[in-house]
Amino acid sequence: MTRLRMPVLQSDLNIMKVSIIVIGDELLLGQVVDTNSGDIARIISSANWQVSHVVTIGDNGEAIRKAVKTALEVSDLVITTGGLGPTKDDITKQVLMEFFGGELRFDDTVLENVKEVCRKRNIEPNELTRQQAMVPSSCEVIQNRVGTAPIMWFEKDGKVLVSLPGVPFEMNEMMRTEVFPRLLRRFGDDVNIEHRFLLIFNVIESEIAARLSCFEESLPPFIHLAYLPMQGYVTLRLDGWHADREFLNGVMDSKRKDIEREFGTNVIWNENRPLAEIALMLLRRNGLTVSTAESCSGGNVAHALTLIPGCSDCFAGGVISYSNEIKKNVLGVSEDSLELYGAVSLPVAEQMVEGVTKRVCHTECGISTTGIAGPGGATATKPVGTVCIAVKTPRRTLVDCYRFPGSRQRIIDRTTNVALIKLIRELKKLEREKKG
Amino acid sequence: MTRLRMPVLQSDLNIMKVSIIVIGDELLLGQVVDTNSGDIARIISSANWQVSHVVTIGDNGEAIRKAVKTALEVSDLVITTGGLGPTKDDITKQVLMEFFGGELRFDDTVLENVKEVCRKRNIEPNELTRQQAMVPSSCEVIQNRVGTAPIMWFEKDGKVLVSLPGVPFEMNEMMRTEVFPRLLRRFGDDVNIEHRFLLIFNVIESEIAARLSCFEESLPPFIHLAYLPMQGYVTLRLDGWHADREFLNGVMDSKRKDIEREFGTNVIWNENRPLAEIALMLLRRNGLTVSTAESCSGGNVAHALTLIPGCSDCFAGGVISYSNEIKKNVLGVSEDSLELYGAVSLPVAEQMVEGVTKRVCHTECGISTTGIAGPGGATATKPVGTVCIAVKTPRRTLVDCYRFPGSRQRIIDRTTNVALIKLIRELKKLEREKKG
Repeated sequence: MTRLRMPVLQSDLNIMKVSIIVIGDELLLGQVVDTNSGDIARIISSANWQVSHVVTIGDNGEAIRKAVKTALEVSDLVITTGGLGPTKDDITKQVLMEFFGGELRFDDTVLENVKEVCRKRNIEPNELTRQQAMVPSSCEVIQNRVGTAPIMWFEKDGKVLVSLPGVPFEMNEMMRTEVFPRLLRRFGDDVNIEHRFLLIFNVIESEIAARLSCFEESLPPFIHLAYLPMQGYVTLRLDGWHADREFLNGVMDSKRKDIEREFGTNVIWNENRPLAEIALMLLRRNGLTVSTAESCSGGNVAHALTLIPGCSDCFAGGVISYSNEIKKNVLGVSEDSLELYGAVSLPVAEQMVEGVTKRVCHTECGISTTGIAGPGGATATKPVGTVCIAVKTPRRTLVDCYRFPGSRQRIIDRTTNVALIKLIRELKKLEREKKG
Repeated sequence: MTRLRMPVLQSDLNIMKVSIIVIGDELLLGQVVDTNSGDIARIISSANWQVSHVVTIGDNGEAIRKAVKTALEVSDLVITTGGLGPTKDDITKQVLMEFFGGELRFDDTVLENVKEVCRKRNIEPNELTRQQAMVPSSCEVIQNRVGTAPIMWFEKDGKVLVSLPGVPFEMNEMMRTEVFPRLLRRFGDDVNIEHRFLLIFNVIESEIAARLSCFEESLPPFIHLAYLPMQGYVTLRLDGWHADREFLNGVMDSKRKDIEREFGTNVIWNENRPLAEIALMLLRRNGLTVSTAESCSGGNVAHALTLIPGCSDCFAGGVISYSNEIKKNVLGVSEDSLELYGAVSLPVAEQMVEGVTKRVCHTECGISTTGIAGPGGATATKPVGTVCIAVKTPRRTLVDCYRFPGSRQRIIDRTTNVALIKLIRELKKLEREKKG
């Protein structure tokens, strides 16, 4: 029952509680995945607040009423997203007035803002967008610079409710730049919460847990260990909370070191960063460039790399060699190897990485993938999930064959992660050898 | 207040209510995005049940207790994910026994299953994985073929609670193949729910709403229209529910036709499918192949295409030409154009698509993207978000320049969607011209 320590202690320390209410029928139908609640949690994670629950409900008055009532009972701060917008009825505004009083009134500054946003988007405001300027008299309006739905800040009995639009980029932009800074000014900081992360490769969750059981027993009551299995690796997270930040940081760093010692070279990294960002950072600090030749991962390795700002320093580009013709003509894979071993084979993966780095992109490092992502394409000797990955660095070219379980999407994600992990490990070895 | 019609009517019709409880500290920290609740909603969407709310909570007993209590009060079926697994304490099992009675007992068949799963994964079961064979005596166990945490089915007073593991692929696989079929047998079908979709391009949400206001007024009380803004397009969804399925289908189809007439060629498609799947279907039925030359989208167009099973019929491959050298050497973009117009320009986009289709991949169709995804790389005349997209079909090569707002990720997603939409529109025109 040791896992109960964290919440018990946190309530002792009077940590501010946050509830998030996500409104939208489309979420309950599974048509759209809710990213808003996670984004809000990430944005406020630098403050010493705890998200105690997230509720997703449809666009209907009764559900919103119930959710707001519960949230105001258990939390100090309630953040809602969605249930606004030009094509929604004003159910959300009506329900919020039941709790915070006031009446709908026309707000000139909101209309001005709506007109300005429309002007930037090169569209004519119509009657529906004008309706958005009707806001409850009981709220303070925060102008939405990137959309037409105004942000509403309500306050009563020391509790705050902020209503944000549901469109993810509007919510994100305004939460980050306007709402969170105001919330920080409104609610002070008492207790410090710190997190430490370790990404572990090639050891499964239950083995990690077995090897860390004594370590876990020895943790002080203000530190908690969590396991997050990812595609191809496990993230370990240490959560700590204490009034003395300096003391806390010291203990957390030392505990992270204990885990690093236990798992040695199976530790991929000791921060919580995307694998692509870690790989690019290592490339940059060693003055190296990389290119990709992807068959079964279909561009996803390149996509992961190019999501990271500034990647063009180190990432030159690549080839998606879905057909054998491209493998031969562009990458220079030999006809013989394709016939003798098949497209999904170690020699072809190796020739792909040689081809993309030497013939096409002229980079020192490279990644290649060739495999069967399914559901079709399997043969007697090569079932769905068979994937060959080659990684080239100035050290050597490493080629391995895997058998990944699961769906097409899962095999593509796993291939992408394992390829990046292999590159990271090779680059770390290279650094160590340079130093040694 | 017309939006209130749907829930009111649904409760009149005694539609079965479903609550989903998602358990995991990592979700409240925003470290992992919850895809389980959306997946469950999609899987059960073929039944006439309504997901009335989704709650996300941490791994702690008090939160689980509260959430289960509320869910059992308001819903007929409660599905929980997470809060199990070898490294969690058995808090979830303990809390469920408070509601459904029983005591923990050792289950031989679960241990056999755990051993079998470990064997397939080539790992040794340890003491922690063995603990998973301790299950409440009050539940029926459904063996988890793809993981070690057993699935538990509880039933009391006509209500069912199913506890599923939190790992997305395990949850998905078992929900789809075992749990949902059992639930369908357990709960009958009375009322039919139908959905219709339309993907609309180049008309913003508020204009769509203004043009559909009379249409919305004329909808019968059992049909409801919802607006879902996506990156680069808007999805319209009609929800209908009625005891007579044939009648309902007739009315829904006719209402969808009304919207199609209103928006004409701005309708991208009249089903809810990924854009890449629509593009591949049109290519296939016209015997065409496609390749990609991506700069700013960095492989994401190819990734979207290769996520669709069977894409290799029509997708040959492509080039990620992040550096100018690759644009020149591989795609044959002229040095002069790069110097005169810059890499982000209409001539370069056009030469990229010509190069990838004629020199590299030998396909009839092609997509190219070149732009500034930011946050760096902007110039005085080309701000962040400037993107040139070329689409080639046997009809013609179409090249356009856009200015997309938002973050790097958003610009990449928008570029990907707009490129696919342009290809879909050109292929539809091609089909019409062939027929005409």
